[in-house]
Amino acid sequence: MPLITLTTDFGDLYPAAMKAVIFGLVPQAQIVDISHSIPQAGVREGAFALYSTAPYFPPKTVHVAVIDPGVGTSRRALAIKAGASEKAQFFVGPDNGLLLPAARRLGASQIEVYEIKNRTLMLAGISRTFHGRYLFAPVGARLLSGVPIEKVGPEISDFKDLDFGNFGIDGDFLFGEVLFVDSFGNLITNIPGEVVLELWAFGTELEINGRKLPFIQTYGLAEAGKPLALIGSHGFLEFAVNQGNAARIFKFKNGTQVELKGLK
Amino acid sequence: MPLITLTTDFGDLYPAAMKAVIFGLVPQAQIVDISHSIPQAGVREGAFALYSTAPYFPPKTVHVAVIDPGVGTSRRALAIKAGASEKAQFFVGPDNGLLLPAARRLGASQIEVYEIKNRTLMLAGISRTFHGRYLFAPVGARLLSGVPIEKVGPEISDFKDLDFGNFGIDGDFLFGEVLFVDSFGNLITNIPGEVVLELWAFGTELEINGRKLPFIQTYGLAEAGKPLALIGSHGFLEFAVNQGNAARIFKFKNGTQVELKGLK
Amino acid sequence: MPLITLTTDFGDLYPAAMKAVIFGLVPQAQIVDISHSIPQAGVREGAFALYSTAPYFPPKTVHVAVIDPGVGTSRRALAIKAGASEKAQFFVGPDNGLLLPAARRLGASQIEVYEIKNRTLMLAGISRTFHGRYLFAPVGARLLSGVPIEKVGPEISDFKDLDFGNFGIDGDFLFGEVLFVDSFGNLITNIPGEVVLELWAFGTELEINGRKLPFIQTYGLAEAGKPLALIGSHGFLEFAVNQGNAARIFKFKNGTQVELKGLK
Repeated sequence: MPLITLTTDFGDLYPAAMKAVIFGLVPQAQIVDISHSIPQAGVREGAFALYSTAPYFPPKTVHVAVIDPGVGTSRRALAIKAGASEKAQFFVGPDNGLLLPAARRLGASQIEVYEIKNRTLMLAGISRTFHGRYLFAPVGARLLSGVPIEKVGPEISDFKDLDFGNFGIDGDFLFGEVLFVDSFGNLITNIPGEVVLELWAFGTELEINGRKLPFIQTYGLAEAGKPLALIGSHGFLEFAVNQGNAARIFKFKNGTQVELKGLK
Repeated sequence: MPLITLTTDFGDLYPAAMKAVIFGLVPQAQIVDISHSIPQAGVREGAFALYSTAPYFPPKTVHVAVIDPGVGTSRRALAIKAGASEKAQFFVGPDNGLLLPAARRLGASQIEVYEIKNRTLMLAGISRTFHGRYLFAPVGARLLSGVPIEKVGPEISDFKDLDFGNFGIDGDFLFGEVLFVDSFGNLITNIPGEVVLELWAFGTELEINGRKLPFIQTYGLAEAGKPLALIGSHGFLEFAVNQGNAARIFKFKNGTQVELKGLK
Repeated sequence: MPLITLTTDFGDLYPAAMKAVIFGLVPQAQIVDISHSIPQAGVREGAFALYSTAPYFPPKTVHVAVIDPGVGTSRRALAIKAGASEKAQFFVGPDNGLLLPAARRLGASQIEVYEIKNRTLMLAGISRTFHGRYLFAPVGARLLSGVPIEKVGPEISDFKDLDFGNFGIDGDFLFGEVLFVDSFGNLITNIPGEVVLELWAFGTELEINGRKLPFIQTYGLAEAGKPLALIGSHGFLEFAVNQGNAARIFKFKNGTQVELKGLK
């Protein structure tokens, strides 16, 4: 069954119009909502959601992502093939970096990026405000139905890129930043778990921006209501409060700089 | 694949019970949630959501909509066929006007409205509080599986109607009202885009309830955080704040009266 | 078509990773979200959501439920078969009582409970923080694809149980507690409708914690904005405000003790 995902900052209503278009073109599609609650214009948060989830999807999945503050301006539209042919997944969305971390994670050196220019693959009429419905959903559906990606337009190399920000060691400290706040209020940083585990073992106490936390393996090893640091399911260092909301208690948010040191 | 949509003010949990019933009757159904976040008892908002989205669905789609403050009282239940036979879509819901704007948009003069009375199409037992599960979902699923609409009950002509409120020119002003506030906080009015475009061209400055806004073609042509007026993807005049929340900033809500004049 | 449901406190993003795993194993699956908005660590609320919805699903449905504050600790993972063979439904989730009320409702005396120990049914690698993706989704998908439940591990009888709390008659009063607050703010108690109907007929006035309410058959029989008591669609006594939010107005929440007496 052809599988297509949607990742947007649309909230309600607009995703249904995209699904209408997809089912009109590929009636047997399986559609998965990755998220429609990405913060408005939160390109990096959307990129993280896609990066974090795409690897669990089977080959040939098409991912349509629309966090697109530049809709209707001169920004380009992209389609990406990531990975070797039979294992490849596809990404469709605006040229603002949104698709790149996920595509690179899946495709490593095997990424092909195309600019979408072929108007025959889009809906009739032109919309300058809702490319999700008019452009990205139909192009995603065409890829899903087997249209070769080369048909969307020319291959390009000057697409916009995006990374998850700096992290590293600075004197005594390991530094990085909060990359994503999840629905539990867990604070996911941009510091890969393996970087942390080279420095400290589980069971260590860490100090994060002056706040002491145990570095442990899972939420339930802390008492209910107590903060902790762990390597979360995304593979990054994460701060959490067991059965509580770390974002609210720490007053950290997306982009908050963090500095860590080990205490024992 | 048979395609059915759901539009409710149910929020969480109750939509799943409707889907259980639908899959029990039509295991291969494709189900699309249009919205389950319509404001409670917001018949007009629900009617707008359906009106705005239904045209993008393929022929034969069945739309079940339940914003139903009169559930269990004497209000009637309706099934509507809209459009010429092979192109028709179907609507199922309470007789409070909810279905009419969408049905008229699709069917124009070709609308047939039936009162649902055939209890053999409903679930066994009677519920006076959850017709979504007991009545509308199973009747929708029967239509989806090919039961002729005439089987639901008698054709009627005295159904309740609903429109999107008055708009027009009053002296110097174009007036109308806010019809729907979307997840971005964009303020969608009941004034059709073509009415605005007969008066003013893109690039004009407009004054809306004393507030000056540029009338432009898309969100991203305003600076981030700045307000604008545009013809949105619904086809109506819309007020927005680029990457911001116009409802919060303007303090407008559903039903707010608006008066516009062109300044240059 | 194989039908699988998801009930979690995950909010956004994480359900998509579970769906990715399910579609990877059972491409033709039909997935229904029962809820992803169960209060964090709200095992009893999740149990109620499942209990209330599962009976409407067809035989062979697999229900995966993950409200799991003990993830990654020593708590066990369960798979349950409820009901006679051709009519049975399946439940997969943590051993914290979450699955039991629904399983008992469907299976009565015919419940088989298994501890999930067979690692070949899980994803490769081990996660201590996201058993939804690593363990419960793949085991649910295997059951969906026909793997016999005995393959998951040994049958056990010392699983954790859970009930919906005490209710009954105490002198003049019928007492119970609020079990679930739905998206409308309706207050669903743990008092079965038939217990109430043995004491009082519709049309009676009740006094609930000092507040007088009419006991009527449906929301719309009260004036808009007025409180009422009814037997809701879940089959329990429920307090509501017609077109309003009873939880906000009454200031009751999950666990609030209630005492009722009939006034006429």
